[in-house]
Amino acid sequence: MADNHEKIATYIRQNEKYYIQRLAEVVAIPSVSGEAARRPDVFRMGEWLVNELKRLGASVETRAPGKQTLEGKELDLPPVVLGTYGTDAKKKTVLVYGHYDVQPAFKSDGWNTDPWTLVEDSQGRLLGRGSTDDKAPVISWLWVIEAHQKLGIDFPVNLKMCFEGMEESGSEGLDEIIYAEADKYFKDVDCVCISDNYWLGVEKPCLTYGLRGISYFNLTVSGPGKDLHSGVFGGTVHEPMTDLITLMSKLVTVDGKILVPGVYDDVAPRTEAEDKLYQNLAFKLDDIHSATESKTTIFDTEKEVLMARWRNPSLSLHGIEGAFYSPGAKTVIPAKVIGKFSIRTVPNQEPAKITELVRKYIESEFAKLKSKNTISVDCGHAGKWWVADVNHWNYVAASKAVQKVFKASPDFTREGGSIPVTLTFQEALKKSVLLLPMGKSDDGAHSINEKIDKRNYIEGINLLSSYLHEVGVVQV
Amino acid sequence: MADNHEKIATYIRQNEKYYIQRLAEVVAIPSVSGEAARRPDVFRMGEWLVNELKRLGASVETRAPGKQTLEGKELDLPPVVLGTYGTDAKKKTVLVYGHYDVQPAFKSDGWNTDPWTLVEDSQGRLLGRGSTDDKAPVISWLWVIEAHQKLGIDFPVNLKMCFEGMEESGSEGLDEIIYAEADKYFKDVDCVCISDNYWLGVEKPCLTYGLRGISYFNLTVSGPGKDLHSGVFGGTVHEPMTDLITLMSKLVTVDGKILVPGVYDDVAPRTEAEDKLYQNLAFKLDDIHSATESKTTIFDTEKEVLMARWRNPSLSLHGIEGAFYSPGAKTVIPAKVIGKFSIRTVPNQEPAKITELVRKYIESEFAKLKSKNTISVDCGHAGKWWVADVNHWNYVAASKAVQKVFKASPDFTREGGSIPVTLTFQEALKKSVLLLPMGKSDDGAHSINEKIDKRNYIEGINLLSSYLHEVGVVQV
Ligand SMILES: [Zn+2]
Ligand SMILES: [Zn+2]
Ligand SMILES: [Zn+2]
Ligand SMILES: [Zn+2]
Repeated sequence: MADNHEKIATYIRQNEKYYIQRLAEVVAIPSVSGEAARRPDVFRMGEWLVNELKRLGASVETRAPGKQTLEGKELDLPPVVLGTYGTDAKKKTVLVYGHYDVQPAFKSDGWNTDPWTLVEDSQGRLLGRGSTDDKAPVISWLWVIEAHQKLGIDFPVNLKMCFEGMEESGSEGLDEIIYAEADKYFKDVDCVCISDNYWLGVEKPCLTYGLRGISYFNLTVSGPGKDLHSGVFGGTVHEPMTDLITLMSKLVTVDGKILVPGVYDDVAPRTEAEDKLYQNLAFKLDDIHSATESKTTIFDTEKEVLMARWRNPSLSLHGIEGAFYSPGAKTVIPAKVIGKFSIRTVPNQEPAKITELVRKYIESEFAKLKSKNTISVDCGHAGKWWVADVNHWNYVAASKAVQKVFKASPDFTREGGSIPVTLTFQEALKKSVLLLPMGKSDDGAHSINEKIDKRNYIEGINLLSSYLHEVGVVQV
Repeated sequence: MADNHEKIATYIRQNEKYYIQRLAEVVAIPSVSGEAARRPDVFRMGEWLVNELKRLGASVETRAPGKQTLEGKELDLPPVVLGTYGTDAKKKTVLVYGHYDVQPAFKSDGWNTDPWTLVEDSQGRLLGRGSTDDKAPVISWLWVIEAHQKLGIDFPVNLKMCFEGMEESGSEGLDEIIYAEADKYFKDVDCVCISDNYWLGVEKPCLTYGLRGISYFNLTVSGPGKDLHSGVFGGTVHEPMTDLITLMSKLVTVDGKILVPGVYDDVAPRTEAEDKLYQNLAFKLDDIHSATESKTTIFDTEKEVLMARWRNPSLSLHGIEGAFYSPGAKTVIPAKVIGKFSIRTVPNQEPAKITELVRKYIESEFAKLKSKNTISVDCGHAGKWWVADVNHWNYVAASKAVQKVFKASPDFTREGGSIPVTLTFQEALKKSVLLLPMGKSDDGAHSINEKIDKRNYIEGINLLSSYLHEVGVVQV
């Protein structure tokens, strides 16, 4: 093993130019899932993967998730590409996931270079849309297969691959396919690895073992049958905006405490083991200051910030539908307004219970107002939180791989946002899911000048390779 | 005089068909000031007035208010048409104002008929965009001149006319022209009459002697340097929306009481004389229920509703700029949000003092929040309230004219909204200004299916004529 690791690592480092050229090849395919005109490019990117997998001797199948309507056009959804490399019953089977679609990008948004041409700058950054999210990670799995073939090294596991083309547009149709294939294509899977997130900072690799959930609410206040002029009606009617703003002001304090009674009841108490994971993380207050371009953090210590992001619920007010929102001055009394807010949920909060607590609280606060308007509260979308057992062999293997490649122990991190496919794999396959990021927190996925550092890409290929080797030998 | 009144009234009633046909002629000119493509039609409507005034022997001048940028195009503003009919030093000089532009209208908005074709329905309603706002009133002044000529009756006053083509788009450039002409074209004016509002209800004519003012505020809360994702940052930073909603919730109660300390201090106490004006008004609670298409009125009596609309200040929350406002769900933490609200002001509130009270209150409430965000409060626009002396001879004359034409005393009304030109004439000319409406409250100015009742139009011409006769003889 140790020999193989060094042998593979050396080969991969020697072929840096080749890997960069291949990344340039896929960045040049503008596979934007959110733009109807780019849909053929998304399909083209899917075909690229199918062809490469075949070239490498994997067996490939695709699943068509169906159709969608976008910009008024009915479009075919790009295929979910399923690949299998190896079917040795004596080996473990690892399922890896990634996405081959990307966010939109326009030079005019402020890119320094053409987003569809991979550019290496003087600091070793590889700039281009999709470089870090998620094309480098996806194709790296292929380079791991290829390196083993070139070096004549036995592949350490059976590899199942699931690459989708709609992740940046809500992963339409993916969940259904995963559930449908759970006992079929994904039948023998022993563990899952997703490489589609980022290091906590810029110095140190991490393994990500938790995500918050989200419950998104619409609070509708209805009054008059049509919008009214505030000159004529101001002061004479119960204005829906006044009721809504009053109710929204009762949801959360300025320092982030949620005011809905009972909402904290089911939050899991901190354990000693969890507490330890917060020690020595590669995270400084300056990191959040620079990420928010401000010093408006509520807390004074790194640990408090990370606990607020990872393991405590939060409530954000996003906006209001139906009210005036443009620059300038309009003197309308809106007839019907919809307040939008969401609660980020954590273990062991149950979405259904959260919805009930929110509804009951808002209805009782509204009753106190004695307004003649009417309200309704509904949870438009609820996605559950996810937390994995960091002692599972999947994490033990990943931790050893990080140690081998980076000569350091990984941070164990959680994230504040949701990556819905994680929970889907967890629930459909009932196997350990690991998030194993390749890029850094400053890569700018979804932003202008998206990049992946050359080192993160090349050592990332090494990391994925080592991870598979460690999975191959880890004690179950 | 009495003879002349009947003679003119009979002539006008006999020529009903002619007046309707002439109204159809101007409704067919789609003089929408708010659409760049319709600008030539606004000019065409201005020329129509110039030509008619010349045909009737008035002297006509125009003033060009300059240019504006609309829909990215630089456009000439339509002319202010100034007409003079009669210069007899022994007669009083009456200045009348109206506007020849109209609101946009599209059949697809829900009109039952083509908005640019005047249609008389079975209930005697004349339907068409601009019919009541403000084309019938404007051209009625011309028909008063014409009727006197046809009947060989001496015109009772000198008439000055000021017709603008930008009223529906903020009267750009008008104030400057009025101030510039105050000592020139408008030099000898003794009183002003504006026919551009509506009866309180649908049964009884009114004279309007007051308008509320408006102070429009922007409350800006700034936090992070850019919008943040609530998954990553929710719970860790002071969110501008939370601060803003908290502050906005402290401005007004659900039943309309303004919470800014000191804001009621300068509200004029009710006098016995004012109280009497509220008696026997043609207004029922059902009128506000049908106008708002709801039963969300705060008050249970007509008098309270009208006092809230006319003589008490009110505060309305209009919306938020910078927050999420679309259907659907977006999980943004907006970086900078601007709350929009306005206070309708009444005698004797001073706009500058109101701004200071609002600023001081919001700043002190914000300080209590101990947020790391920053705020600014500014009054984007302040227009003062206006109240006229109902005992002025201008009102006495108008009241007598109503009595003659409608065999009833007029309601004396105020309005909750502002008509800025009223205050401009008042302040520039320092003469009594009277609002003498022709249409009814249900005419639907600015709405689909705008109409003026045939009776209101024809008897409206009579009313304007009688008004000028009464002004001619009233004791000053
Ligand atoms: Zn991604
Ligand atoms: Zn992404
Ligand atoms: Zn008007
Ligand atoms: Zn109007």
